[in-house]
Amino acid sequence: MTENTAVDRAAALDAADPLARFRAAFVASDEVTAYLDGNSLGRPTHASAERLARFAPDVWGARLIRGWDEEWYDLPLRVGDRIGAVAVGAAPGQTFVGDSTTVILYKLVRAALSSPRVAGRDEIVLDSGNFPTDRFVLEGVAREHGATLRWIAPDRDGGVTPEQVSAVLTDRTALVVLSHVAYRSGYVSDAAEITRRAHASGALVLWDLCHSAGAVPVALDAWGADLAAGCTYKYLNGGPGSPAFGYVRADLQDELVQPIQGWMGSAEPFEMGPAYAPHAGVRRFLSGTPAIVGMLAMQDTLDLLADAGLDVVRAKSVALTRFALELVDDLLVPLGVRVASPRDDERRGSHVTVDHDAFADTLPLLWSRGVIPDFRRPNGLRLGLSPLSTSFGEVRVGVEAVRDALVEVTGEAGVRGARP
Amino acid sequence: MTENTAVDRAAALDAADPLARFRAAFVASDEVTAYLDGNSLGRPTHASAERLARFAPDVWGARLIRGWDEEWYDLPLRVGDRIGAVAVGAAPGQTFVGDSTTVILYKLVRAALSSPRVAGRDEIVLDSGNFPTDRFVLEGVAREHGATLRWIAPDRDGGVTPEQVSAVLTDRTALVVLSHVAYRSGYVSDAAEITRRAHASGALVLWDLCHSAGAVPVALDAWGADLAAGCTYKYLNGGPGSPAFGYVRADLQDELVQPIQGWMGSAEPFEMGPAYAPHAGVRRFLSGTPAIVGMLAMQDTLDLLADAGLDVVRAKSVALTRFALELVDDLLVPLGVRVASPRDDERRGSHVTVDHDAFADTLPLLWSRGVIPDFRRPNGLRLGLSPLSTSFGEVRVGVEAVRDALVEVTGEAGVRGARP
Repeated sequence: MTENTAVDRAAALDAADPLARFRAAFVASDEVTAYLDGNSLGRPTHASAERLARFAPDVWGARLIRGWDEEWYDLPLRVGDRIGAVAVGAAPGQTFVGDSTTVILYKLVRAALSSPRVAGRDEIVLDSGNFPTDRFVLEGVAREHGATLRWIAPDRDGGVTPEQVSAVLTDRTALVVLSHVAYRSGYVSDAAEITRRAHASGALVLWDLCHSAGAVPVALDAWGADLAAGCTYKYLNGGPGSPAFGYVRADLQDELVQPIQGWMGSAEPFEMGPAYAPHAGVRRFLSGTPAIVGMLAMQDTLDLLADAGLDVVRAKSVALTRFALELVDDLLVPLGVRVASPRDDERRGSHVTVDHDAFADTLPLLWSRGVIPDFRRPNGLRLGLSPLSTSFGEVRVGVEAVRDALVEVTGEAGVRGARP
Repeated sequence: MTENTAVDRAAALDAADPLARFRAAFVASDEVTAYLDGNSLGRPTHASAERLARFAPDVWGARLIRGWDEEWYDLPLRVGDRIGAVAVGAAPGQTFVGDSTTVILYKLVRAALSSPRVAGRDEIVLDSGNFPTDRFVLEGVAREHGATLRWIAPDRDGGVTPEQVSAVLTDRTALVVLSHVAYRSGYVSDAAEITRRAHASGALVLWDLCHSAGAVPVALDAWGADLAAGCTYKYLNGGPGSPAFGYVRADLQDELVQPIQGWMGSAEPFEMGPAYAPHAGVRRFLSGTPAIVGMLAMQDTLDLLADAGLDVVRAKSVALTRFALELVDDLLVPLGVRVASPRDDERRGSHVTVDHDAFADTLPLLWSRGVIPDFRRPNGLRLGLSPLSTSFGEVRVGVEAVRDALVEVTGEAGVRGARP
């Protein structure tokens, strides 16, 4: 593809994009020409900017403590249900918004190990390619619980297959913890099949949905998943550090004990009673006072996703990553860049990762030019493509800028291997 | 005091109030004539309203992922240090902003029990008058840890004295967990003396500062406290559900293990390394991605407190609660209302609690008239007086409105026992 062809291709893809109208919903940054990091921190919408601007004068400052009765007390479950319906395929009463992803993972892993269904089992299956916080939480819980971690190494596509899981499942497996979309490679695991196999061996399954929710369809109820946790500041555009969500399948809730017994998860939070009793249903997985301010922005993206439809979002995500791969093959592979994401559309999430030892040095150049991919040490660039806010033109500008920066820092004279 | 006298007294106190100018810093609610619940949810400042309004367009949307490098990664420790300096008497490097109060309590209690200083000890001292979430967290930790809870019943002033603590301290006591200011009565414990006695018996002490921070001076370093946790949405005006802060004394940090091992507390968060190692210093007590949006508003109140000076804030707090008690004695005690807060200024925090069985019925009336105290079941009204934002006039309007509402719901013909 020549440069002109790429321009034309991007323009044609943008012109045919059924989600193009959603780009206007997002706050633009004047100096940013290609934001390819929506998989790490999504952009704010105008609606969220307005919601945040109105919050102190019109809601917090006007309603004051009455806001708890009027709206906030139920917000973690109401927004949770909305995430369930719009993004992760969960019927109401199973999803909550709460603490950070890390804290929710801790609570749900501990809760899973309390289930009578896995009594006497002492192994946890995980993979060495999972995001550090998942691995760190599991290391800590295993140590305090006397459990054994059974590690899977991701295959060459950077993901975990049902066969790999089957190979480590035993009658001692209590819990399998995996990411639906791998944070580094973007590999999409076959969650339904892995859940089926784990259940057949008597284990519970917890899915990390951080890199799925809002971009890759998730069907927790249909998969028969037991537990899940996910992030809201990536494709749900909740803002930096917005609280995460958790899912516990309805029939499991009342048999699980979560370790952080707080007033907001207790049977009668405002009775100030003498002893803790868990609330019925999913509320028992809450602990402290919900982060209301942090829950504001995600609500606007949930509205947009409901309007767009997650299948249409997924179709654009596939088209975006496919276009990115075309450009990478044309412009970066000839420079020695290696593609670290699956080429199979079905197994690829909403980001494309490319590796090159000189990428660390390109980052200051790229940032100074308003091109913002995500860098993962030691050598990975993730091109995160957020279907509601990213254009095909942005992908083109971004990959071309990476090519230029790489040429500059490696001293290559020009682009080798570009095809007409 | 006749009604006119009360009006004059309030006006004179407001005229002489050295903090009067700070009231203009807060967003007013048109319909609220007396907000007496700053001990539960503080009001927003205009500066915070602007900060929230600017955040999406100018910071999050403009800086995008670069915000983490430029500002957000260090924010939990930077704001923590500021809380330490301005509100709780802690030198830098010991205070962090993190999860909800409940989650921080859980992490710090678990961390305390991991200390070699209390190895072999298995008792935790707490009081039955503490806020439910403190008691609930401790019940849960005791159960999972096989520890025994040693309960203190608050004395008639609703607080815990050094003598009461001494009576339950043994060579098996690992940890003492108390509130500096009792959430219900407002009793201010003698934290320095209790800490001294606990240390003399070899125990660690964790102070809950939820009802102190920003209104009642705290001197964690001077007390020699080991650990503390506190709330930012009360007198620090962080907004509903803003993240809490934690304190771990410098010399303890590296010997404690906290259970929720997350990437943000790990030695090298962005190395994505294979195994968890805790970060040096106080950062190890962080777990997940910090709640940046939730940390915005509290920064403005910290600026105001630094400007005002906490001793001046405390002096006004004492004057406010003393005036409230005068009015209560005049207007409410004759109606059968009982004062449930200490009358000794030194032992009284920034709220006054009054009990009457009919208070539950007065609440809708009071709200409809723009008078908002805090109700605590079954029969308590807390009059929370936030020194930077509450006027003496507001206290008068509030107590008179409580009197009127109580007369209406109890059918009393008038105010008995009012003195000229």
